[in-house]
Amino acid sequence: MLTYSMADIGSDKLYQYLYKQIRNDITSGVLTVGTKLPSKRAFAGHLSVSTITIENAYNQLMVEGYIYSKIKSGYFVADIKSNLVEKRSDVPENHETADHVSYEIDFTSNQVDPDNYPFNTWTRLLREVMNECKSELVTNSPSGGVWQLRKAIADHLLDFRGVRVKPEQVIVGAGTEYLYGILIQLLGHDLTYAVENPGYQKIVQIYKSNRVKCEPVGMDGQGIIIADVEKATANVVHISPGHHFPTGIITPVSRRYELLGWAAKQDDRYIIEDDFDSEFRLLGTPIPPLLGIDQSEKVIYMNTFSKTLASTIRISYMVLPPSLMARFQRNLGFYSCTVSNFEQYTLARFIECGYFEMHINRMRTYYRNLRNELIEKIKISKLADHVAIMEEDAGLHFLLKVTTTLPDFEIIERAGSMGLKISCLAQYYDDSVACRDDIEHIFLLNYSSINKNQISKAIAILGAVLEK
Amino acid sequence: MLTYSMADIGSDKLYQYLYKQIRNDITSGVLTVGTKLPSKRAFAGHLSVSTITIENAYNQLMVEGYIYSKIKSGYFVADIKSNLVEKRSDVPENHETADHVSYEIDFTSNQVDPDNYPFNTWTRLLREVMNECKSELVTNSPSGGVWQLRKAIADHLLDFRGVRVKPEQVIVGAGTEYLYGILIQLLGHDLTYAVENPGYQKIVQIYKSNRVKCEPVGMDGQGIIIADVEKATANVVHISPGHHFPTGIITPVSRRYELLGWAAKQDDRYIIEDDFDSEFRLLGTPIPPLLGIDQSEKVIYMNTFSKTLASTIRISYMVLPPSLMARFQRNLGFYSCTVSNFEQYTLARFIECGYFEMHINRMRTYYRNLRNELIEKIKISKLADHVAIMEEDAGLHFLLKVTTTLPDFEIIERAGSMGLKISCLAQYYDDSVACRDDIEHIFLLNYSSINKNQISKAIAILGAVLEK
Repeated sequence: MLTYSMADIGSDKLYQYLYKQIRNDITSGVLTVGTKLPSKRAFAGHLSVSTITIENAYNQLMVEGYIYSKIKSGYFVADIKSNLVEKRSDVPENHETADHVSYEIDFTSNQVDPDNYPFNTWTRLLREVMNECKSELVTNSPSGGVWQLRKAIADHLLDFRGVRVKPEQVIVGAGTEYLYGILIQLLGHDLTYAVENPGYQKIVQIYKSNRVKCEPVGMDGQGIIIADVEKATANVVHISPGHHFPTGIITPVSRRYELLGWAAKQDDRYIIEDDFDSEFRLLGTPIPPLLGIDQSEKVIYMNTFSKTLASTIRISYMVLPPSLMARFQRNLGFYSCTVSNFEQYTLARFIECGYFEMHINRMRTYYRNLRNELIEKIKISKLADHVAIMEEDAGLHFLLKVTTTLPDFEIIERAGSMGLKISCLAQYYDDSVACRDDIEHIFLLNYSSINKNQISKAIAILGAVLEK
Repeated sequence: MLTYSMADIGSDKLYQYLYKQIRNDITSGVLTVGTKLPSKRAFAGHLSVSTITIENAYNQLMVEGYIYSKIKSGYFVADIKSNLVEKRSDVPENHETADHVSYEIDFTSNQVDPDNYPFNTWTRLLREVMNECKSELVTNSPSGGVWQLRKAIADHLLDFRGVRVKPEQVIVGAGTEYLYGILIQLLGHDLTYAVENPGYQKIVQIYKSNRVKCEPVGMDGQGIIIADVEKATANVVHISPGHHFPTGIITPVSRRYELLGWAAKQDDRYIIEDDFDSEFRLLGTPIPPLLGIDQSEKVIYMNTFSKTLASTIRISYMVLPPSLMARFQRNLGFYSCTVSNFEQYTLARFIECGYFEMHINRMRTYYRNLRNELIEKIKISKLADHVAIMEEDAGLHFLLKVTTTLPDFEIIERAGSMGLKISCLAQYYDDSVACRDDIEHIFLLNYSSINKNQISKAIAILGAVLEK
């Protein structure tokens, strides 16, 4: 009769241990197909365990299909066909480490300095929410997010962007990247999406990864060129009229009306307005969104808390025009909201209580000072003779036009080898655009993740790179 | 000269107020295209404000394109073409309220009772994380999630599911619904995806919403029928072999090997194993995942913390076989992880410190008691003669086979009108399947969001519904 030593039982229950032993014997072929197992009573006596132990082990083996029973004749090993399958290869080495070279100073990162995250207030509000809203926290929110947050966002848009929308038009999601994917499902996979060239290359990647047609369209000094949008037979334009990345262009109101006019001509035309850093205009009043002058329900407004709070808190939102909102409810309302209730309620309170406004104001001052110090130090450095600064009043980056004979990639490589990461304007152009002189030697300095102590070193590295 | 009263200035700065007044006059047509604005000095004198106020207002209007300047001749109203655009329709009424009828007792909900969420432990760990990991919290995680969480999940899989995977194979995302979308992008839009029929209808909706071919394939007593998978020329099968929803079928090991054999035959064949409630097998040992016997890198394992923690905490994960992991890094590594670092680090600690295991054990006992009480009370009620209980040992639901002449939809409607929400088995079948006798009069009782005090009332309502 089958015999198993109970010596190595470890923390398993008796029946679990027995079940594993028998299972191993079946998968390894020690017990072959059709073999009759001992009767429960006899096996129990043989192993000095209770019948119920054997019964539990047999039941588990039956449930998983390793054995089967025939009425009045007992238990038999099933045919599990384990020989059909090839061996798995060894797990290769970690693929990610290579992508994560870390730089001492990074002018390409959207991260915030930990000192700038409002940890104390956030923790306190989160604790309040955990104490006061237990029931709400475990109640599924509608697909668009919890009402309190959508209401807080709608109020914020009215107070700070001058736009009146209903809370139900606000759709909350785990990052703009996620919402772009939802928009494709909402607007249609067969449409052509025009994106700005140069622009944020991730947007192109997302459209391509979702297998929709995406056309990079050129810009002039006023924003995306509408004649080229028409030429590309695009249905949807995806733009940042408030502050274009990376050139900093602000689309004037005349071009905005032209864009709205373009969209109004066909039912399936829409404008996705990505207002990703409107809060950080450092001079004058924030630029009002295109949404505010949209009379024909053509603008889908998007914004994110990644820039204003932290890139690691995955909360973004879009505002759908009423007609699309109805379509969203009908076609995509089955989706669960992708942001946890805990963070939705905490953020709602953070906005409602005025902390968000305070935080933005504090950060605007912080970034203005940081930028000023960076620019001033550049101006009194050896760099001064070789560079010109452009587009410094908005966003969290500016452009540095460099007088040099070195090719851009070499400057980036040299800086990288000295621990400084920067990018150049040409990198934000679609590959299909031929090399152009007017975009050469322009570098982006995104200073949001830099701290003041790094400024001198950063300038010294840039100076050394250009001197060589 | 233009005159604006400063009476209604409110909290605006002078220049902002002035900017808005002039902007309104331009958009409303009071100031027409080409109109010359007063010189800064004259205007300042006229309004008794400083020249700098006028300059700021003009600058903002220029930046936004409402006015333009000509050197040596002054400022002029730009052509903004506002007449091109139609009026926006009124925002329709809230579309969501209709979808959110609330029931007193809901046997279809996946929500947890707030008393069952480990608020105290969670809050404490979150506070610890906020104190100790400030820098990590604002540092962008790799696309697959923060290392600590992926490591904790890999360790959990080894300890509780007996499967050894590397942390980098674990991809964390904001809910399985989100991860399904990522999988489509990873495996391909041109493949055919087979899903279980009956099954969880949301999966079908997600495939359809992403415009990929999705074929519902029939089940026998052992799970999905492989011959029908072949007939459907599917490349990917999306199944729950550990505990099928809603029938409760456990796929035996023989069928599992057949499935692996099917997948091994072609390079583009994969099995998505949705192990969504393996933690809540209430009798015997949890069913080991298909992943554990996959030797040929064909199984993509998925699980979620929605069932074990709360449906409103949006954290799920998948385990990619090494070959797909490399493809993920290459093609989709540009995506930001959709779960906030705050919750990723908190959950990692929750698992590492053993709280997750304790919580699951506690919940398993809780659900077992709840189920027992519900079943016992059914057995001693008037219902007893009309119903049979099936598949009660796993998941958080069981099936109730009812002897009745009433059509299923009428039972659901009657119960609904009395505040009780239930669903019937037929609702989980693809529409294309003809009405079958053997699935009639079978109802699902998902008891995860019910509390003990509701049991008697629930039984009374069901009794009343069936008596009518």
